[in-house]
Amino acid sequence: MRVELLCTGDELVTGLTPDTNSPYLEARLFELGIKVTRVVLVGDVREDISRALCEAAARAEVVIVSGGLGPTSDDFTAECAAKAAGVPLVEDARTLQFLRERAAKRGRELTPNVARMALVPEGSEVVPNPVGAAPLFIVRMDGCRLFFLPGVPREYRALVDGEVLPRVRTELEKQSERTHRAFRLLRTVGIPESVLDARVAPLAAAHPRVVFGFRTHAPENQLKLMAEAPSQAEAEAALAAAESAARAELGLAVYGADGDTYTGVVARLLTEARATLALAESCTGGLIASQLTAVPGASSFLIGGTVVYTEQMKMAWAGVPAELLERHGAVSSPVAVAMAEGIRAACKTTHGLSVTGFAGPTGGTAEDPVGTVYCALATEGAPTRCERFSISGDRELVRLFAASYALELLRERLLTAPSAP
Amino acid sequence: MRVELLCTGDELVTGLTPDTNSPYLEARLFELGIKVTRVVLVGDVREDISRALCEAAARAEVVIVSGGLGPTSDDFTAECAAKAAGVPLVEDARTLQFLRERAAKRGRELTPNVARMALVPEGSEVVPNPVGAAPLFIVRMDGCRLFFLPGVPREYRALVDGEVLPRVRTELEKQSERTHRAFRLLRTVGIPESVLDARVAPLAAAHPRVVFGFRTHAPENQLKLMAEAPSQAEAEAALAAAESAARAELGLAVYGADGDTYTGVVARLLTEARATLALAESCTGGLIASQLTAVPGASSFLIGGTVVYTEQMKMAWAGVPAELLERHGAVSSPVAVAMAEGIRAACKTTHGLSVTGFAGPTGGTAEDPVGTVYCALATEGAPTRCERFSISGDRELVRLFAASYALELLRERLLTAPSAP
Repeated sequence: MRVELLCTGDELVTGLTPDTNSPYLEARLFELGIKVTRVVLVGDVREDISRALCEAAARAEVVIVSGGLGPTSDDFTAECAAKAAGVPLVEDARTLQFLRERAAKRGRELTPNVARMALVPEGSEVVPNPVGAAPLFIVRMDGCRLFFLPGVPREYRALVDGEVLPRVRTELEKQSERTHRAFRLLRTVGIPESVLDARVAPLAAAHPRVVFGFRTHAPENQLKLMAEAPSQAEAEAALAAAESAARAELGLAVYGADGDTYTGVVARLLTEARATLALAESCTGGLIASQLTAVPGASSFLIGGTVVYTEQMKMAWAGVPAELLERHGAVSSPVAVAMAEGIRAACKTTHGLSVTGFAGPTGGTAEDPVGTVYCALATEGAPTRCERFSISGDRELVRLFAASYALELLRERLLTAPSAP
Repeated sequence: MRVELLCTGDELVTGLTPDTNSPYLEARLFELGIKVTRVVLVGDVREDISRALCEAAARAEVVIVSGGLGPTSDDFTAECAAKAAGVPLVEDARTLQFLRERAAKRGRELTPNVARMALVPEGSEVVPNPVGAAPLFIVRMDGCRLFFLPGVPREYRALVDGEVLPRVRTELEKQSERTHRAFRLLRTVGIPESVLDARVAPLAAAHPRVVFGFRTHAPENQLKLMAEAPSQAEAEAALAAAESAARAELGLAVYGADGDTYTGVVARLLTEARATLALAESCTGGLIASQLTAVPGASSFLIGGTVVYTEQMKMAWAGVPAELLERHGAVSSPVAVAMAEGIRAACKTTHGLSVTGFAGPTGGTAEDPVGTVYCALATEGAPTRCERFSISGDRELVRLFAASYALELLRERLLTAPSAP
């Protein structure tokens, strides 16, 4: 089924208000197996709305239109709908009565501008709005059904859930040959998008019912799997097979799926292992601490964190020997190791994690230019591990990737080490 | 000038990712006096993209297209652009060279899928991407200019600001009769939106050429002033008058304008005063440190930061006496004061800033429920100031507002205290 969305309103095309209605409806439709084919946003301009209505009706079987049904002078979607359908606007008696009673309940007269909300294209199906004033109306044009909804998110969602989706579902069930879909998002950290693609794309041939897609959301790269089949059971089976092949290929790089967050997963692993953590951050400047403490309950594992930009505080808080700083410089493997071990000792924790590097835009040396980062992890009863990374990008990206690389050392250890008693 | 936006990507039509690129560009164009006439989102479907490209080129003078320029198999916008323009795809030598060098810097070979990013429609103008791999390319079709940008928000914004907007501005300046606009965004912290509205709205009557708008972007509230006039000089004069009336009304609450960032302003004030700072964060968990260190050059003023969730580390790093913690509890004014003074002493800085509170979702007491936050500022040669705040909202909002309230103590002191010699 070809479904398009059309949203009207100057606020949507001037950057004033992001369109949150469409993502809501798209997700609900996707759960029914429908991928919206097009979303169009236009401003409050009569010709633009009428034109967009005609174009959408010519392309799609269902069009869901929102906005411009209110009482003010810039609300004229009903007028445009009538024009596009080639019918006059008529007053819907039941809506008018509802608006009159609604005004009376608030001790007001029905004003002419509010009464305009009862005007709908002739021949429409009119459905009352359970949480607001303007009704939903449904117009048929060229074999297409157009649903007109108010743009106010509360009213939009109530009408989508209560009226639009049930009608779409009924329509779908009439189609014997419809596509069922199942969806999974696998989240990875530490694999570049191109490497992810190169490793996973060859699997696609063995899973013809599954579309493999990729998305970057630094520092993550995500693999999207979408299965299509004639029945839901087949779609889910195809998805499960593709997911398990992808997970086998990617191993530990897949940290989670769908709504998981990276720091949420690391926090859960720490909690499950009953492990504690201390941080000594130089170039990430508190970013790791801030990400981890955004997770509720972080106080159960994060004993202490430090931002040790200066040599003075590296010595004072992380116990880094002056001699090491002098001999190797603050951005070096020996100093990263000393920071991780020193902060673990100071906080008496299971793990001590450190980051030191050049975030830029200035700094760096010939051997260790801007973007060079050393991360070290000290763990009770295990050898300290230190890794050097070269990160390209601006200060923000260097910090973002440095934080995720450091946490990767921790996640890998938590996944592979025997947990605490 | 008729400008349309076209964004491609399955994630945009399945509710997975809201389109944040379009609102950004719409707002920038609106500042130039251009209201975008249409925004179209389509999934990763070749025919849909090609069709949408042809339709947009037929309607508009400028079309800004984003998404589908990456290295993976679901990236085929360049291919659709070539098809729509009726030209072959060709390899751009300069881009290929750039991609090869970029791979080499990371110690990798140039893979065929990455090399695909050098393919552009024949005859395109190709502009390097300053912060990523895929270049911007510009195609002419039927008197319309189509700009093709990567969808990754960082890259999109960099190319919009650096390349697209300057070209649109040049084009605009060639047109004689147009509405001239001037725009200012005043940024405030610490005033609720309703209070901001109540204080500023009465000014509007005296400034008929200026539209006053409000926008919330927690923890900030912003006042948007947009002047329209037949000439640029008149628009700017009207704007200047309205801005100065608003600044007179709001005083210190206006921390900056337009592209200023809150932490950038605080960092600049610290640098100008040649002051240094130490942080003891409990409920904000490193958020203040992380925000400040996102500003290049933060190492010149931020000597040390700590995340002191536990009583143990409050004592060890911020020198809070055990007796105070026992008598008043960790979330209290005496402990906030001791943290600020203790961290300043430990780091030997001009200022010591502390935050302690209940970020939730659990915790809190009858007198100090979740959302209660104490912030204290200790300054060399000045009395320590401590304030109690009650913040409503979830954990994320409590942390966000707590960080901004703490920094407000510092900003006020930096603005009112005599600066260091």
